[in-house]
This record gives sequence, structure tokens and C-alpha cells, in this order.
Amino acid sequence: MIEPDEIIFFDNNATTQLDPRVVEEMLPFLSRYFGNPSSGYRFASQVRDAIELARSRVAGLLQCEPEEIIFTSGGTESNNAALNSATQLDPARRHIVTTSVEHSAVRKHCAHLAGCGCSVSTVDVNGQGELDLGVLQAALRPDTAIISAMWANNETGVIFPVAEIARMARAEGVFFHTDAIQAAGKVEIDLRDSPINFLSISGHKLHGPKGVGALYINRRSAFRPSFFGGSHENDRRAGTENVAGIVGFGKAAELASEGLRLEQEEVRGLRDRFESAMLKAIPGAAVNGARTVRLPNTTSISFPGVDAGAALLLLDQRGVCCSAGSACRTASLESSHVLRAMRLSDEAARGSLRFSFGRYNTGQEIERGIQIVAETIAKLRRLSAPPAAASVV
Amino acid sequence: MIEPDEIIFFDNNATTQLDPRVVEEMLPFLSRYFGNPSSGYRFASQVRDAIELARSRVAGLLQCEPEEIIFTSGGTESNNAALNSATQLDPARRHIVTTSVEHSAVRKHCAHLAGCGCSVSTVDVNGQGELDLGVLQAALRPDTAIISAMWANNETGVIFPVAEIARMARAEGVFFHTDAIQAAGKVEIDLRDSPINFLSISGHKLHGPKGVGALYINRRSAFRPSFFGGSHENDRRAGTENVAGIVGFGKAAELASEGLRLEQEEVRGLRDRFESAMLKAIPGAAVNGARTVRLPNTTSISFPGVDAGAALLLLDQRGVCCSAGSACRTASLESSHVLRAMRLSDEAARGSLRFSFGRYNTGQEIERGIQIVAETIAKLRRLSAPPAAASVV
Repeated sequence: MIEPDEIIFFDNNATTQLDPRVVEEMLPFLSRYFGNPSSGYRFASQVRDAIELARSRVAGLLQCEPEEIIFTSGGTESNNAALNSATQLDPARRHIVTTSVEHSAVRKHCAHLAGCGCSVSTVDVNGQGELDLGVLQAALRPDTAIISAMWANNETGVIFPVAEIARMARAEGVFFHTDAIQAAGKVEIDLRDSPINFLSISGHKLHGPKGVGALYINRRSAFRPSFFGGSHENDRRAGTENVAGIVGFGKAAELASEGLRLEQEEVRGLRDRFESAMLKAIPGAAVNGARTVRLPNTTSISFPGVDAGAALLLLDQRGVCCSAGSACRTASLESSHVLRAMRLSDEAARGSLRFSFGRYNTGQEIERGIQIVAETIAKLRRLSAPPAAASVV
Repeated sequence: MIEPDEIIFFDNNATTQLDPRVVEEMLPFLSRYFGNPSSGYRFASQVRDAIELARSRVAGLLQCEPEEIIFTSGGTESNNAALNSATQLDPARRHIVTTSVEHSAVRKHCAHLAGCGCSVSTVDVNGQGELDLGVLQAALRPDTAIISAMWANNETGVIFPVAEIARMARAEGVFFHTDAIQAAGKVEIDLRDSPINFLSISGHKLHGPKGVGALYINRRSAFRPSFFGGSHENDRRAGTENVAGIVGFGKAAELASEGLRLEQEEVRGLRDRFESAMLKAIPGAAVNGARTVRLPNTTSISFPGVDAGAALLLLDQRGVCCSAGSACRTASLESSHVLRAMRLSDEAARGSLRFSFGRYNTGQEIERGIQIVAETIAKLRRLSAPPAAASVV
């Protein structure tokens, strides 16, 4: 097995290492406290209490009320559930407005709903990955049920103006859902008096466990569940709770709240150092997306003349973990829909890599990473350069 | 906190204590091996390998092929997904046939689907909780999409003739789904050449973690997913995998396969000892449901003249954990739908307790449990008995 100290992990938007304090908090619920939280006896009600503590910690991260949080099996379920609910409440309102750069858990689910009687309008972004509020508003129709637009993009880190979108949606009388899976733990989220109706987050993106997420449901918003069975989660999500996962997620959320400002300033420093070094070392390298309104931990860089797939293979051999786009799409061979939506040239899109940093990256790793990536890109360029004779012309 | 050694846990159908060997197998995936299984580099592909090992272990428990297993967030999701799929494949076939004693994850989901254009026929059981195959068959209609009938009942342990139902369903050209959540790990399940289309199981019922389950999808059966996003689980269930949970579930399945015969004979011995002692010690006590075709670990006993809620409170005070019905319904005050379906008298249903045993119960616990339960029932009967004067009549 490859151990964490053998790699340089620059793929924190794909997943993150669990914080040891998270694991410590989970362990008793994987061994001693195994009661089913729905059972009536005290041995089980103490497990219920642990879930409620986790709920208040997740609510703390989002600055909302604990009763506005339901736990899910992850970000995909949260995104799916919000769209399911909004499009089922009123048969006369089954139109969805979304953007061309959403994660597949919104994009593919919209495509599915389009096959089930919904209609979907997809709004483009500009070349910097930014969303125009006016264009979004122009896509609304009398039958629009919901707008779904992400808080921050998983590939470029570009942040959408969610507060403004939420206000506009409220004024227009449509629901607003935001996929904040990449934003939570990286930028402040404050849902006090927010007009946002639904917001999705995921445990494993903020040093918590995989397989657990949450959906924020504004207490004034109608909601129809996607799971049916027991009356768990206040009748909003049936199924025996993933107790250890929820407890770990709660601790991860607490740690993310506490560390948000300081930690993210550090991470931003590392990211900026890496990014500047890349732009300096590699001619033609360019950052994809607006650099100013962006997550502090993410950089997507295009290296023209390089095949990202080949680069990832060579980087893997030297222990550097990064990605060409979302982890959830790695298996597919098509280039990133996000970069295509930003109208990058085919060459730039094919040569783009995403580096995303996090709590456990060090300055030393950044320096080593800069060296390895620069050498790898230079090597690939040498290999793919046209023969000397031809290049004389 | 109440520790496991302070209680006598006779509620193994609600949940089970994790096997320490399961936890040990999970731990590396909560600490060192944190890669996202969808990522391309080797640090992540080793996590993918661990998921595939777990899949083959779960397939081993069911004696099916690994590619016939998708991992879910638990039994509820598995049950919901099977019914969603079968009722969405053909708009002309949206009729469901199910039984009156299913778990709420089937029952309530059928009620939901009935509000979404499906129709549902619910077939009764007899006074012993048994299902008549002829009655089931008579409920089929030209528009029937699926039969959903559980392998074994969670409250009484009564086993349905699933092999016969599956053959009949196949002959009639309708899908057959069975909720085997209580059966797996307690009776042999052999899906080689089985006409069963879908089968649900859950990790935490067989000494694995909560928040993970599986759906068996017969390789010849069409399936439409319920989750949309990444191409996880061979495009059948989107969402980053609950890696540690899946790994633990795999180990739990392996242990359950290995120990099935011997362990369940031991558990049956404990159950039978407890049951006979109860029937002997408490006048009027009776076992609910057919005693011969039953899970080896379950007994549901009615104690006429006793209020089960009061009994559970007193038993909890003395450290005995059991239940009045399914854990998933504990919060509701209505009496068990299973016992009502069996046409128990109100008094018998109100006075019924379920005791379910498992791997970690000991003979000593059984003796102690017999004593405490007998004393508690006797005490409650004294308290609720009519005054002496009146009883002279």
C-alpha cells in the first residue's frame, strides 16, 4: 500500500485526509456505543444525543439552526434531494434553472429530471467562469420551480454571487439551492436571515469521513423527502443513521469553523506561492477562471501543448496527486465540461490541471511540488515538440 | 455514558455491536488510506481495490457475482431504489404487490409511490404471520411491475417462501424484490441461478457499521438508478463511496458467511432457552407467529395484561434492551402493524415484546435476562390487576 508520507497530496477538492480528532470522536461509536438511535432505551438515546450534538456543530459551521440540517449519505444525495423536492411540490412548476458548470450531481440529475417531465434551462458562464445575474434572471419562467447554482466551482474555485442570486430568487418566488460542497470550510457561510432555501455540504471535503453529508433546509421552506421508511431526521430522511459518520462530520464541521480564517489564509499563501511559481516557470501557463473571486485553496492551470492525462501519470509516478477535473469524472475521457463552458481552446482544456490544497499541506511540499510539476511539464513539452527541422520554419 | 457491559442486549434485530475485526479493517481507511476511489492516481486506486474486495465478500455472503452488488447508504435506500427502478421502467406497469407486514422502508415507500401514479395491492398474512402464495398470485394484474415481500419479518422472525415467490414472479413476468435485511447473516442466502431480481441487505444488522447497505441486482435485470451524478457503482448509484463503511460491511459479510451455521445454531439455542422459560414462567404468555419457519434469533412474545411501553421502561432501568416492535417505529405510539396484520387482539398486541439475540449474547445473559423479564412482567401484572375485592367474583 502507498502511505500518505510517500505522496504529495494536492487534490483536496477530491477528498481530504480525516483529521485525527475526527477519527478519535468516531471510534466510540464504532465500538462501545452501538445502539440504534431510534430505540427507546437509554443505551440508544445517548447515541441520539451524539447525533444532535453533531447537528448543532454542522449548524454552527453554516450559522443556521440545528433543525434546519438533515444528514444524508453525502453531497450527491443532498443535491439530488433538493432538486427532487422542489420539482415535486407543484405540478405546474417543474422548470429548473441551473448553470453550465455545476457538479455532475446537479447536472446529471437535472438531465434525469428532464426525462421525467421537468424542463431545464442551463445558463452559461463567461470566459472567467463567472455568472451574470441578469442572464440567470432572464432564464426564469412562470413555471420555474428552482434555481440551482453552486457556491464555488470544484474545478476552478470561482465563487458565484450566491447572496445576490438568493435575493433575486426570493423576489421572483422561486426556490434557490446552492451546492456549497466545495465552499464549506473554505469560505465563511452565514445563513442567518438568508433567503437561501437549500444548501448541500459533504463531510469528506472538510477532513471528515466519506459517506455522510447534510442538506440545509431553510425552516420556512417546504420540503418533500426522497427517502421513505422510518421517521428519522424529523420525517425528512428515512434510514438508520450513519452514526459514526455523522459524529465525525460534526467534529470536522466544528474544527472547520474554528480554524476557518487562520487556516484558509495559510492555505491561500501556499496556493499563491505554487501558482506564481508555475506561471513563472512554465511559458504559456495560465490560470483558468477569475483569480480574484475564488476559493483560497484551488488553482486550475492550463499548460498548452501538454496532455493532462499523460501529466497525471508522470506526476503519480513521482508521488504528486492532483487531477484534471472532478474526481467523479476521472473515468470518462471527455475533457472538463467546466473548462469547455468557459470556452477554453481545446488545447488549453486538454492541458489543464487542478491543484487543490488543504490543512495538511506544508511549505516544504509546495516547494517540492513546484519542482516536480515544472520538470514534468517541461519533459512532456520536449516529448511532444515538433522535430527540430520543422520548427526552424 | 452507559457502557455495553452494563446492559443485556436482546435487541439484535434493531442493530448489532460491531465485530472488533470489522472495526480493525475499517481503521486504515479512516486514517491513512483516504484517497477518493474515483481519482486516477495509485494512492486512490488502492482504495478502489478495497471496495472491490468488500464487494466480493458481500457477494460471497449472498452467493452471487460481485457485479450484482451495488453499495448504498443502508437498507432503506436499497428497498426504495428497487421499487423506484421497477416502477419507472415501463409507464404501463406501475402496480406494486406487497404484504401487510413489510418494514416501513417498503410500506411507507409504497404509500409514497401510490401518490405518484403507482397503485399498490397489499396482501394479508394469516394469524401466524405466514403468506399464502396463491393469495399473492391472485393480486397480480396485467400492469403489475413488481412484487416486494420480505425474506424474514423483523418483528416475528417469520420467514416467507421467497424461492417460491421468485419462481412465480418470474413465470408471471413481474420483478421480485425481497427485503432480506433481517435474514442475511442468520439464514443461508444462495442466489446462484436464483430468479430473485432485487434483494436488500444492511451492514449494521450483521455486526457491521451503520450507514451502509447493498442492493443485489440480478445481472439479467434492468435497473434504473435513484441517484444521479458521478459514474460510481458502474453508473448505478452516484456519490463518493462510504469507503470505511463499505470495507467494514465487507468484513462483516465475510464473518457472517464463515460463522453462519455454527453461530446461528448457538443463537437458536439461546433463543429457545429464553422462549421456553418465558412461556413457562408467565401464564398466558404466547409466541407471536409461526414458530417453525422462523429466524433462529428472534422471538416475539405477547404478555396479556401488560403494557409493553411500561415493560420497556422497567426493563431499561434494569439494563435489559429489547423492543416492542421495529426500532424505526419506536417514536410512534401506534401498536405494531405486523401484529395487527396477524389479527392479534388489541390486548395481546399492546402486551408484546420482541427479543432478538446475536453473536455476543451468552448463556449467563440469557439466565439473567429470563429472571429480570419474568420479574418485570409479574410486577406489572400485579400493578395492573383489578382490586382483590373485584377479582373474587
